[in-house]
Amino acid sequence: MATPDYAQQGFTAMRVELDAGVAIATLTRSKERNTFTGPLVKDLLHAFDLFDRDDRVRVVVLTAEPNAPAFCSGADLSQGWGGLFSPEVDKEGEHAHRDSGGVVSMAIFRCRKITIVAVNGHAVGVGVTGLQLPFDIRFAWAGAKLAFPFVRRGIAPEAASSYLLPKLLGHSRALSLFLTGATVSPDSPLLAGLYHSILPTREEVFPAALALAKDLAANTSQTAVAVTKALVWRGYDNIEEQHILDSRGIRILGKAGDAAEGARAFKERRLPKFSDQLSDDVLTPWMPWWREVNVHHRKAKL
Amino acid sequence: MATPDYAQQGFTAMRVELDAGVAIATLTRSKERNTFTGPLVKDLLHAFDLFDRDDRVRVVVLTAEPNAPAFCSGADLSQGWGGLFSPEVDKEGEHAHRDSGGVVSMAIFRCRKITIVAVNGHAVGVGVTGLQLPFDIRFAWAGAKLAFPFVRRGIAPEAASSYLLPKLLGHSRALSLFLTGATVSPDSPLLAGLYHSILPTREEVFPAALALAKDLAANTSQTAVAVTKALVWRGYDNIEEQHILDSRGIRILGKAGDAAEGARAFKERRLPKFSDQLSDDVLTPWMPWWREVNVHHRKAKL
Amino acid sequence: MATPDYAQQGFTAMRVELDAGVAIATLTRSKERNTFTGPLVKDLLHAFDLFDRDDRVRVVVLTAEPNAPAFCSGADLSQGWGGLFSPEVDKEGEHAHRDSGGVVSMAIFRCRKITIVAVNGHAVGVGVTGLQLPFDIRFAWAGAKLAFPFVRRGIAPEAASSYLLPKLLGHSRALSLFLTGATVSPDSPLLAGLYHSILPTREEVFPAALALAKDLAANTSQTAVAVTKALVWRGYDNIEEQHILDSRGIRILGKAGDAAEGARAFKERRLPKFSDQLSDDVLTPWMPWWREVNVHHRKAKL
Repeated sequence: MATPDYAQQGFTAMRVELDAGVAIATLTRSKERNTFTGPLVKDLLHAFDLFDRDDRVRVVVLTAEPNAPAFCSGADLSQGWGGLFSPEVDKEGEHAHRDSGGVVSMAIFRCRKITIVAVNGHAVGVGVTGLQLPFDIRFAWAGAKLAFPFVRRGIAPEAASSYLLPKLLGHSRALSLFLTGATVSPDSPLLAGLYHSILPTREEVFPAALALAKDLAANTSQTAVAVTKALVWRGYDNIEEQHILDSRGIRILGKAGDAAEGARAFKERRLPKFSDQLSDDVLTPWMPWWREVNVHHRKAKL
Repeated sequence: MATPDYAQQGFTAMRVELDAGVAIATLTRSKERNTFTGPLVKDLLHAFDLFDRDDRVRVVVLTAEPNAPAFCSGADLSQGWGGLFSPEVDKEGEHAHRDSGGVVSMAIFRCRKITIVAVNGHAVGVGVTGLQLPFDIRFAWAGAKLAFPFVRRGIAPEAASSYLLPKLLGHSRALSLFLTGATVSPDSPLLAGLYHSILPTREEVFPAALALAKDLAANTSQTAVAVTKALVWRGYDNIEEQHILDSRGIRILGKAGDAAEGARAFKERRLPKFSDQLSDDVLTPWMPWWREVNVHHRKAKL
Repeated sequence: MATPDYAQQGFTAMRVELDAGVAIATLTRSKERNTFTGPLVKDLLHAFDLFDRDDRVRVVVLTAEPNAPAFCSGADLSQGWGGLFSPEVDKEGEHAHRDSGGVVSMAIFRCRKITIVAVNGHAVGVGVTGLQLPFDIRFAWAGAKLAFPFVRRGIAPEAASSYLLPKLLGHSRALSLFLTGATVSPDSPLLAGLYHSILPTREEVFPAALALAKDLAANTSQTAVAVTKALVWRGYDNIEEQHILDSRGIRILGKAGDAAEGARAFKERRLPKFSDQLSDDVLTPWMPWWREVNVHHRKAKL
């Protein structure tokens, strides 16, 4: 792909910068508490599609302005839930609806780069589910209030959170959080394991995330990262098949440039300089090995 | 269904009261340490079947009398394990046996309401597995001794605990507990995440559980709860299919009464008053979406 | 099988002793930091095959000499990754490679006895994955440095660790560890739940593991252990099928000698003396109930 200019993408709900292999996306609708509205959805889908395909991007960090009253205060309920359902989609039948939180979750989840979220403010509903759970690594402000209000508002957890949260934290914690409609802080025992790091002040969250992001952008292999993510999320359900699968990964990566450079750097006691890129198509004959599910509704109309 | 009178159900091993949407089941065979015997199994199956179908029940709390010497001391081994196997069932062949702990686990697990267990005493074997793991939320007394003695008694974990415990806590903790035949207290690192709350005294356990139960009975949607539990336990094994599934849930719930009331209450900054009920059959065209497995043995005899 | 003499097996990278039902395997290439080389792989495969089949072995403990500079410092990178790929296997085509870490993981994972690893030194790469994750129970020295360096060396996690780590600790911790290429100590929150016990000094690790091992060798049922491990790892993906499965386990074990002895010992308030052995074939008509996957590459050459 051509190298996109992130300042020229027409984003209206966030801004994106590229810094030393790190794509930094900052939510900018602080006044509206970064509610999860159509323009934000559109920006996130567009941005994560670019991040996935742009070889220059090795790590993504999503954050909000640290003085925003909220990292993301969830869906905009000023129109009730009706705002969720578009008349156009409804015309296609009752199976056509796709939850917008989930559409965003898919885009983040499918990004083959390392994704980090820096939660430097309060978060509610989809601000916890769609904007946190699909990321690889989560940083949070210790003072953030995190709300899972679904059952207290008459709906169920969305954005594929009923898939992600049990896998991230186990079913016991996930059920406690979902069924009590809990509001908790990041250091709650119910969230143990969810955050890579919890920082005392809002201002420290993004710099800490960025420091890790820059380390990883400089010192990790883009192809090894993509394989690792896929092995963890798209693996098989018995150990023998996973052994055959990761053997194939070791064979393909082990004969490619980054592995040679990794071994050389280790022997020479220096940091590596990785140059393999996803667009080189080293992985293409192998990935995806999994059944790809099309999430789009098939329109009945010809 | 008609509204059952819980005082007239002929329970002999426990008593059941209904209080503000909360069904409270209290084990009453304190003198016998609430051993897991036939009458208790019968009572539990009958009670959880009613709780599942009685619209008035929004939350269930199971507990024991706090002065009982044990919450549940497990199977009654006075007859050895032989008491487990009925001659009638044995006549049907060696595949006909159904573990009674598991039969109870199924009844609790399948209850579509929020289920809470208040473990205010020691628990052994099925008192930990069948009477705790299938619940959504667990409270415990810090001083409770919890024993997983299976491999030390020549049998294996039952009551579907080999399914539930790894999902609740991860395989590492589950294997440590099962294979060491451990006796631990609720604050053991091996149990981290299992209990929603751990209370210092036996007397505090049930009131704490009841307070949460009453909050949830008053402020959560019965239909949203049923969908949430099903999404978590009956979801799909890849994220895209779960996204399609929870989108359907959002579509169905989002157009129903409770979601409208939830949004109204939020805007009006008041507590919601949910009125949708499972018997309204809003969810019936959709649930169960999963393959229902018949656990009963098919008798060969015509 | 005949009873093997562990002193006469020709091990070159470790020594094995049998002590009161506990097979103790000690890595002996301290000078080479117990790197994961061909001779070690060969020894481990041979030893765990014997441990699985030798009725005298009830528990296995793997450890290193406590004064070794490392428990296992991972793959030997002196030849780069090229050393991983044998020309013979490469001739069979690019699907023939089997990761040697994974080959060892399979042998440990398939051992039907209780397996314990006593990590009394630093561990890197396969020294963390293949030599720790497939065990049932892990002990560690608090000062051990544990490194998951894969993405920093241009390869992906191997030895089926992308299967095991998410199941052991959840996907959140697994992704943080894998994608940051972390080096952590056993008490890192990222590893919470991985270690059964963490000891302050290197010298305490093996004795603590051995004490538990001897307790378990004396007081657990060999057949109950084998069923427990299989129920946890080879169970079904819905609770009803698991209930039918563990009911069968209870039926088979409950009518065998060890269960009778377990109940008698409980009633007589004494320790049990279990005598059922895997070679008695009580479990053979039932196990394996799961689909067995052949991990060997099928040679095209006739």
